[in-house]
Amino acid sequence: MSDTDLPKKAAALDAADPLAKRRELFALDDGVVYLDGNSLGALPRHVPGRMADVITREWGELRIRSWGESGWWTAPERIGERVAPLVGAAPGQVVVGDSTSVNVFKALVGAVRLADDDSRDEIVVDATTFPTDGYIAESAARMTGRRLVPVAPADVPAAVGPRTAAALVNHVDYRTGRLHDLPGITAAVHAAGALAVWDLCHSAGALPVGLDEHGVDLAIGCTYKYLNGGPGSPAYLYVAERHQPRFDSPLPGWTSHADPFAMTPGYTPADGAVRGRVGTPDILSMLSLEAALDVWDGVSVEDVRAKSLALTDFFLECVRAYVPDGRLTCLTPEAHGERGSQVALACADAPAIMEELISRGVVGDLRRPDVLRFGFTPLYVGFADTERAARTLAEVCSGRQS
Amino acid sequence: MSDTDLPKKAAALDAADPLAKRRELFALDDGVVYLDGNSLGALPRHVPGRMADVITREWGELRIRSWGESGWWTAPERIGERVAPLVGAAPGQVVVGDSTSVNVFKALVGAVRLADDDSRDEIVVDATTFPTDGYIAESAARMTGRRLVPVAPADVPAAVGPRTAAALVNHVDYRTGRLHDLPGITAAVHAAGALAVWDLCHSAGALPVGLDEHGVDLAIGCTYKYLNGGPGSPAYLYVAERHQPRFDSPLPGWTSHADPFAMTPGYTPADGAVRGRVGTPDILSMLSLEAALDVWDGVSVEDVRAKSLALTDFFLECVRAYVPDGRLTCLTPEAHGERGSQVALACADAPAIMEELISRGVVGDLRRPDVLRFGFTPLYVGFADTERAARTLAEVCSGRQS
Repeated sequence: MSDTDLPKKAAALDAADPLAKRRELFALDDGVVYLDGNSLGALPRHVPGRMADVITREWGELRIRSWGESGWWTAPERIGERVAPLVGAAPGQVVVGDSTSVNVFKALVGAVRLADDDSRDEIVVDATTFPTDGYIAESAARMTGRRLVPVAPADVPAAVGPRTAAALVNHVDYRTGRLHDLPGITAAVHAAGALAVWDLCHSAGALPVGLDEHGVDLAIGCTYKYLNGGPGSPAYLYVAERHQPRFDSPLPGWTSHADPFAMTPGYTPADGAVRGRVGTPDILSMLSLEAALDVWDGVSVEDVRAKSLALTDFFLECVRAYVPDGRLTCLTPEAHGERGSQVALACADAPAIMEELISRGVVGDLRRPDVLRFGFTPLYVGFADTERAARTLAEVCSGRQS
Repeated sequence: MSDTDLPKKAAALDAADPLAKRRELFALDDGVVYLDGNSLGALPRHVPGRMADVITREWGELRIRSWGESGWWTAPERIGERVAPLVGAAPGQVVVGDSTSVNVFKALVGAVRLADDDSRDEIVVDATTFPTDGYIAESAARMTGRRLVPVAPADVPAAVGPRTAAALVNHVDYRTGRLHDLPGITAAVHAAGALAVWDLCHSAGALPVGLDEHGVDLAIGCTYKYLNGGPGSPAYLYVAERHQPRFDSPLPGWTSHADPFAMTPGYTPADGAVRGRVGTPDILSMLSLEAALDVWDGVSVEDVRAKSLALTDFFLECVRAYVPDGRLTCLTPEAHGERGSQVALACADAPAIMEELISRGVVGDLRRPDVLRFGFTPLYVGFADTERAARTLAEVCSGRQS
C-alpha cells in the first residue's frame, strides 16, 4: 500500500470501529494523540462531576455518615465486583485497595502460606518484571524464608519444581509489550505443585485475562492504566475462591476483620475477598475509579482486544511505510498471541525522539535508555490518531518539520 | 455556676477565642454540632475547588505530564514536610502514603531491623490500642520471628528490657481519650535499649507531639482526623534522621528506589524520608490532604492545645451541670496532662443515646458496647457548640424533647 493510502485506510477503519463512539466519554479534545494510557489512563468526562459530589456532599455535608449512607465502607469489595468481569473473575474474588506493590506483597506471602510446605523454599519471579514486583518479591522471600529465583517468563515452566512455592509473572511485559502465556505457564506452575500469581497491570482492560477459566491462584493489578481510575488509583487483589478460607494476609488490617467495629484485640479474618483489605480505604481515589469504570458498561473485552490488535497492527504497518528500515527496532512481537496493547520501538536517540514527539502532540513515553513506548487504549485511541502518530514519528526520526 | 450561666460563658469564651475565625474555613454551616472530627475531619471549603483543578486540568488536560509538571511525583515527601511541624519533626523525616495499617507494618518491622539483635526477641505493644495496630504488630512479630507482648501503656516502662526490640504505643487512646506519657515512655524504652514507635492518629493536629524533642525513633499517624485530609487520606511515616541510613523497609516498592526510573532489577534504597515510600502514590487522596493542610497556615499547635483543653474542660463542666450524677461515667482523665482532645462517656444505653443525639444534630460516635465519643477539633468547634452538645445530651439522657 502506498503511503498516501494510509490516511484513507485509517478513516475507513475508524468508520467501521464499533468502539469509536466511546472516545466521546473521555476528555480528549485538545488535538493530542494520547498513547500513554498504558501509564495513566485519560479522564472520563463524567468523573469530575461525580467527584465534586463525593467531596462537597458526601464528605462536606454528610461527613461521617457517608461511611454507611454513601457506601464508603463497602467500596473496596463493591468496586472489586466491577473489576472482576474485566479480568474473567466470578463475583466474590476481587477487592480494591492499596498500591500494586502492597498487593504484590499480600499475594506472594499469601501464596507461600497457601503452599504451606517448608520444602518449597523458592519463589520464582519474572526476571523481566516491572521492578517493583521484583523488589517486593525479594522482601516476601526474605520474610518467609524463601529464596528468590528470577527467570524469564518463557523459562518459568522449566524452572518450577518441587522446591517452588509460588511463581509471580507479568501477563504483559511493561517494556516490550510482550504478552505471556498465562494459561500455559499457570498449568506448568500447577503441574509442579506451586501457586501461580499474575500481575495484570498491562493487560486488564486491554485484553481478556480469564483468571477463573485458567485456574489462576492469585492476581494483582493496577487501575490507573487501561482502567482509567486516575493517578495512583488503588490496585486490586484477586484470591481464587478455593483459596480464600486459607488465605492468610501478611497485612491483616482492621478492615479485613470479620467484625471490624467490635474492635476486639484478637484478629479474626473476614470470609471472602474482604480478607484482602487492610486499612481505611482511600475513598477519593477509590470513588474516582468507581466512576471511571462506567465507561466499560456494555463493552465486551473481546471487542476491545480485536480493536487493540487492529490498532497495533495498523501502527506497525504505518511505521514500516513511513520510517526508513533500520531506523527503529521493534521489541513488540508480531504474533497476535504474543502481543499486548502497546508497541515498543528502540533506537539509540530515543530520549530526544520522544521529547520531540511530545512537543508535536504525540504523547508516548520513554523507558530508559532506548525504548519508545506507545500504548493503544481501544476505548479512546482511533486509527487516524494512530496514522498521525506514525507519520509524526517518521518526521521526527528523519529530522523533518511537520 | 447555675445552668443558665453556661450559654453566657460559652459566648464569652467564643468571643475571646483566637482560633474562632478558623471555623469559617470549613463547610460547617448546616446547624450541626460536629464532634466526630476525631474520626473524619470536616471539609475545608477550598478543597473542592483545588480538587476540581487536580482532576480536570492536572489529570484531564496535562495527563501524564502532571507527574512532573504538577508535582505529583514528589507529593509524598512534599506533603510530609507540611505534616512535620505539626508533629514536632524537623524537615526530611516525614513521608505521606499508604494507610496507617501499612505504615505500622513498615515502622515495626523497620524498628526490629534497626534493633538488629536476635536476643531482642520481643515487641511490646499497647494492649489498649486501636485494634489494627495490634493485628499488624502480631504480623510484624510473626514475620520477624519475635514474640508480641501486649501491655497497657502505663506498664510499658516496666515491661521493656533486654529482650525488647521495639515498643509500639498510642499517644492518645482512641476509646477513652487518655493521653499517654510520650516523653517518659520513650525514655524508658530507650533505657532498655529498644526503639520507641508511636501512633499519633489521635494526637497530631490536636496537641504538641514533639517527636524530635523527645527522641522518638519512628512514628505513624493518619491524616483524616484532626488533619482533615478527607476520607481515607494517606497516612504518614516518621523515621528519625539518625535511623534513616539503616531503615530497611519490608515494603521496598519502586518509588523508594534511589533511581526509580532506571528501573533496574536490583533494589537500591533512596536516602532520607523517601525510603519510606512504596508504590505509586494515590494522588487524588494525597492532594486533597495537601490542600486541607492550608488551614494550619499561621496556627500554633500550642494555641490549638490550649483551646482543646478549654473545650473539653467546658464540655465536662456543662455535662456535670446538665446531666444527673451517675447517669454517665467519664472515661477521659480530668488531669490536663492525661487528656487528649476528646471526651468519652460510658453508659449502658450508649447506642440509643448516640442515635438520638445524631438525630438532634449533635454528631459524636459510638464505640461498642457502651462508649459515647465526642471529639473536639479546635479549628472548628466552638464553645457554644460545646454547650449545645452537653445540653442536648442531657435532654436525650433524661428522655426530654428539646
